[in-house]
Amino acid sequence: MSPRFVLLAVAAAASLATMGTLRAQAAEPIQPIVPAQQVNLGMVELGKKLYFDPRLSKSGFISCNSCHNLSMGGTDNIKTSIGDKWQQGPINAPTVLNSSLNLAQFWDGRAADLKAQAGGPIANPGEMAFTHTLAIGVLESIPAYKREFKQVFAKDKIDIDQVTLAIAEFEKTLVTPNARFDQWLLGRKDALTADELAGYNLFKTSGCVACHNGPAVGGNSFQKMGVVAPYKASSPAEGRIAVTGKDADRFNFKVPTLRNVELTYPYFHDGAANTLPEAVDVMGKLQLGKTFTKDENGKIVAFLKTLTGDQPSFTLPVLPPSSDATPRPTPFK
Amino acid sequence: MSPRFVLLAVAAAASLATMGTLRAQAAEPIQPIVPAQQVNLGMVELGKKLYFDPRLSKSGFISCNSCHNLSMGGTDNIKTSIGDKWQQGPINAPTVLNSSLNLAQFWDGRAADLKAQAGGPIANPGEMAFTHTLAIGVLESIPAYKREFKQVFAKDKIDIDQVTLAIAEFEKTLVTPNARFDQWLLGRKDALTADELAGYNLFKTSGCVACHNGPAVGGNSFQKMGVVAPYKASSPAEGRIAVTGKDADRFNFKVPTLRNVELTYPYFHDGAANTLPEAVDVMGKLQLGKTFTKDENGKIVAFLKTLTGDQPSFTLPVLPPSSDATPRPTPFK
Repeated sequence: MSPRFVLLAVAAAASLATMGTLRAQAAEPIQPIVPAQQVNLGMVELGKKLYFDPRLSKSGFISCNSCHNLSMGGTDNIKTSIGDKWQQGPINAPTVLNSSLNLAQFWDGRAADLKAQAGGPIANPGEMAFTHTLAIGVLESIPAYKREFKQVFAKDKIDIDQVTLAIAEFEKTLVTPNARFDQWLLGRKDALTADELAGYNLFKTSGCVACHNGPAVGGNSFQKMGVVAPYKASSPAEGRIAVTGKDADRFNFKVPTLRNVELTYPYFHDGAANTLPEAVDVMGKLQLGKTFTKDENGKIVAFLKTLTGDQPSFTLPVLPPSSDATPRPTPFK
Repeated sequence: MSPRFVLLAVAAAASLATMGTLRAQAAEPIQPIVPAQQVNLGMVELGKKLYFDPRLSKSGFISCNSCHNLSMGGTDNIKTSIGDKWQQGPINAPTVLNSSLNLAQFWDGRAADLKAQAGGPIANPGEMAFTHTLAIGVLESIPAYKREFKQVFAKDKIDIDQVTLAIAEFEKTLVTPNARFDQWLLGRKDALTADELAGYNLFKTSGCVACHNGPAVGGNSFQKMGVVAPYKASSPAEGRIAVTGKDADRFNFKVPTLRNVELTYPYFHDGAANTLPEAVDVMGKLQLGKTFTKDENGKIVAFLKTLTGDQPSFTLPVLPPSSDATPRPTPFK
């Protein structure tokens, strides 16, 4: 065999293998997470600072990262979040990781996209308890922010649209590729153990995948919480009806992503399930009318833990200092 | 002149210049910050995680970084800090930056060193409101922490000494070398403007330097707040008397470092001064019996802003997830 022929044969075989992998991958109801693309890096760096800046809150103590902590799976790992003056939030903080893949933001989908979401907590009296006007006043008084906004947006005045656009651009980078499950999808067949693979097959055959599918393994539809039997929520939230006003949407919530679900405990919109075995058990019973055996539950949980991807990795931002003219926070007023 | 002789002459001249610089530097009452040395890197990485981990608090919401925020000069930039259930702290949170250079920790010096300090806030009912026993219970239940502690300390059980030792080791790395003032001290004579240099001379000739000296420009003695005239504090704290019981120590506080003072507003143990011009004015009047003119005040402030060094730069740590056995935080109980 001539070396040239060998090369061609190898290339053809590789090509066939790739096609085979792609075909197999296309047939799976879950697709790999793709790293962030087409981002504006200047806007990302500005948005990162804003994401970590507690001066966007009335108290000067709460930032986006307080409840969507990037050290902890993009959540606060608390049942329901802590807001201004230690107010107890009505709902569990969903993860910011891979949230760019959601069909809409918030559990009830009331924000169309990340930009629309970002302004919400700043002005929510139970969360950061500030106003957009006051937040802009703070930013306008900080010379280094003034310069950075001007550099990124080429405008003389900072406005809330720029703020939420920058935060959203940063959040677009918070995807978590390279989970072991994605490695398996992409052809590394030894990336999963036999139990994890058995868990994935149970996840598919039991019907979990009907709602938890796509690259985010969820996040792409609204579904009723409590299909087979009613869910007794500890939260007063009624879900999608708050947006549509339609009675049919009562207790319809956005299906949460299961990406990094090992890190995003506690589970459900009311944070009532502390552990994955508990969450899988409740989901099986209330959504599928199915009681998983301990062995089945363990295998599904093992599969779910293969969805933990590479966490966002970046240098902690250093925030520009306030100037003498910057209004000071008022945490105790 | 032979090339060899030229080389020797140049070397001799350079050596004389270096000696001149070193002599000038030795004569200054402030010395450059030296980068961290002799640190245990495994312990630093573990301590960094613990520093950012809110699971060391009862609520699961407050970490060391909440009040000593490394995005904000190692402080919270709030008059007095926010503790568990939004309790108002009695005193302004001092910066963690360069705190390894302090003669003791806390405003009243009640902790001998960083290790002794680190355990305080965890168990303080007004701060993190946890107990050491409960904090250790949380860490023991997290497999990745178990492994990391074992790797670093080679012991089977985690204890509070290991926790505070690791946090202190991380804090030793939080020094801020390379401020413009240090560049000037090290011989870059164009590192300061004429006004900044004039401010430094005023700082020396007016007497500020009597207390604010050494590498940290403070942090190395206890002094009375209100020497020439009494200081009307908004905080009930009485300073060093709480430690020594001696009446002479009433209102004696540790002289704060002026390193990065541009970032560590508001100022004084009660956080009553919002801006540097205000702080310089009050210090002049109450400690030195001196009213600085607007021009003098501006020059001293300009000098103080040259003390901002390279801020600690590191990747935001990713915390190991809790296990099913980890006790959950109780923020609202």
